[in-house]
Amino acid sequence: MPDSFPPGSVGLVAPAVFRFDTPLALSCGRTLPGFELVVETYGELNAARSNAVLICHALSGHHHAAGFHDPADTKPGWWDHYIGPGKPIDTDRFYVVCLNNIGGCHGSTGPRALNPETGGPWGKHFPPLRVRDWVASQALLADRLGIAQWAAVIGGSLGGMNAMRWAVEHPERVRHCLVIASAMKLTAQNIAFNEIARRAIRSDPDFHDGDFAEYGVVPRNGLALARMVGHVTYLSDALMGERFGRELRSGSFQHGLDAPVQFAVESYLHHQGDKFAESFDANTYLLITKMLDYFDLAREYGDDPVRAFARTQARFLVVSFSSDWRFAPERSREIVRALVGARRDVSYTCVESDFGHDAFLLPNPRYEAVMGAYLKRVAETC
Amino acid sequence: MPDSFPPGSVGLVAPAVFRFDTPLALSCGRTLPGFELVVETYGELNAARSNAVLICHALSGHHHAAGFHDPADTKPGWWDHYIGPGKPIDTDRFYVVCLNNIGGCHGSTGPRALNPETGGPWGKHFPPLRVRDWVASQALLADRLGIAQWAAVIGGSLGGMNAMRWAVEHPERVRHCLVIASAMKLTAQNIAFNEIARRAIRSDPDFHDGDFAEYGVVPRNGLALARMVGHVTYLSDALMGERFGRELRSGSFQHGLDAPVQFAVESYLHHQGDKFAESFDANTYLLITKMLDYFDLAREYGDDPVRAFARTQARFLVVSFSSDWRFAPERSREIVRALVGARRDVSYTCVESDFGHDAFLLPNPRYEAVMGAYLKRVAETC
Repeated sequence: MPDSFPPGSVGLVAPAVFRFDTPLALSCGRTLPGFELVVETYGELNAARSNAVLICHALSGHHHAAGFHDPADTKPGWWDHYIGPGKPIDTDRFYVVCLNNIGGCHGSTGPRALNPETGGPWGKHFPPLRVRDWVASQALLADRLGIAQWAAVIGGSLGGMNAMRWAVEHPERVRHCLVIASAMKLTAQNIAFNEIARRAIRSDPDFHDGDFAEYGVVPRNGLALARMVGHVTYLSDALMGERFGRELRSGSFQHGLDAPVQFAVESYLHHQGDKFAESFDANTYLLITKMLDYFDLAREYGDDPVRAFARTQARFLVVSFSSDWRFAPERSREIVRALVGARRDVSYTCVESDFGHDAFLLPNPRYEAVMGAYLKRVAETC
Repeated sequence: MPDSFPPGSVGLVAPAVFRFDTPLALSCGRTLPGFELVVETYGELNAARSNAVLICHALSGHHHAAGFHDPADTKPGWWDHYIGPGKPIDTDRFYVVCLNNIGGCHGSTGPRALNPETGGPWGKHFPPLRVRDWVASQALLADRLGIAQWAAVIGGSLGGMNAMRWAVEHPERVRHCLVIASAMKLTAQNIAFNEIARRAIRSDPDFHDGDFAEYGVVPRNGLALARMVGHVTYLSDALMGERFGRELRSGSFQHGLDAPVQFAVESYLHHQGDKFAESFDANTYLLITKMLDYFDLAREYGDDPVRAFARTQARFLVVSFSSDWRFAPERSREIVRALVGARRDVSYTCVESDFGHDAFLLPNPRYEAVMGAYLKRVAETC
């Protein structure tokens, strides 16, 4: 490993593609004839095959969670701060598995992939998914890797929903479940923000009712708007105030000028939106936000989360962040109450942070300590 | 007055148009050659001309604050619950003046009006405004009506900024200033939401860079999106949860179905957005949200609100609402602290409400009692 990688980095990594030719029956009633998953792994599977950890990504995540694809990369994977030798998700102890989920747009089978029935990209015809479909495909991946039971399934936000669904659907296959900045179901406000983002995408003339690929265009503006809405709501009011305040990016308030004034926060948001629109797929955005909206842990359990969690065998760590208003601490406390009601073993921490929902991705000593201490105990029993 | 109007209503009202032919020098350095204001008044000006109250509207408001334009109207003016005989803004005691401000789109001179220099509508070429320009035009209206001093200037949200600016710019003309759900300046988060709304409008292909009127179209979709963003942020998470929860409007979660599910909150939002797009002008939306962003009470006073308020002679009532997160109670407390620092007479109440920022428009017994008691004392000194 070259000296150029920072200490604690997993260093140079390369994704692998796993092909599954068995048809996957989806919760919508349709069947995916086969699928591919793009996967990265860090660390070594031990002889007992008992130290595997699954990382579940959120709306805009993917398989590249840690390390670098190229020594020249300026940025590591999206959760690099938490995954690596000596880090909370310690690759000296765990075999860490990260994948891009089906329906995604980073190489796994999704709207950008080819539909074998038509020979063209799936596009908007990709089947609607539920989180349980991700779990089903991840279970097939675990089988392929020879992992009968995960030492831990870990996820933030939508990834936390994914982790909870694992614990409920495959109780015997999950020893620990780490649910971070998540919820058992979205609130009306959350659904509302998602629907605004979707309308922004759908109403972009370059969306072409989902067939934009056929026209050789991308609904950049709709995607950028969707991301801008997401971005504002993932940050806290306090953080935006600290970071941007009312600083000007251009123009001036000098009296007598008829020039437009742009605040720093405006140019930052446009930049974030435009950057996202360069890489993300619009059909994936619609599909995954619907997965978020539809997720309801207890729906099939008489709307009783205690009944749902009563099926689980895992131990739980639940983490929320004080300034997160899209997945508020109260949503995490609801999870904890249901777990306690189901007499499960659960630890809960609400971490002080000004970073809103984004906190689950960012450095934070308290968060690192909580997750590190919990996973150290998990590693000792592997 | 027909029996059909509810008790406490001002009944049938009709707007009047006031024409001003004196050029109005604007803060941007340009001059409006003349302008018209659409005005409604309720109650009678007393002989001493000392009982006049100015109502300042917010982003989407206008002159029609109370009563009905037609006996067949199903809805009264936008603040009818608070204006009328025996109501907090008591038309048996006060002469209430409401206007559509310049730059607006409900009849007063704004982007939809004709530009005398070109003969066509002003459109995007209407000069950018500041709240102080509204105050200047309102002062000319007061002169025309023979009102040397307002008994009270009252406004919520942007209207509260308008009321504060009156008290600072014309100290001798404002006896009482009622600042409701407002702020001395917007936060970065608020600016961010406004900019998302503006990008939604600008990127609608029917916007035509502001020249949509020439093409005979309206950027409905952009306006609807802008309103949807506004609407979600004007309500509280709790209220949306109570009102909509996760109820479905169409579709079902029955297993095995590949049909889209629509939540009630989604159809509600689309309805609100589409309704707004029917009547509101896109250039006005851009112009007024910029007024909101640019407003900064203390900018010309060394960024010291105490210095700004030290100029005022009015007494103040400041009201905030517990669940309002766009104009949070803390913003009102900042106003109160600055007024106290300037040794002004100020009363402050934070009203418990689940209705978010919209609370300032809605029925609320505590809010009614606070405003009613305050204005009763104002009326006794008229």
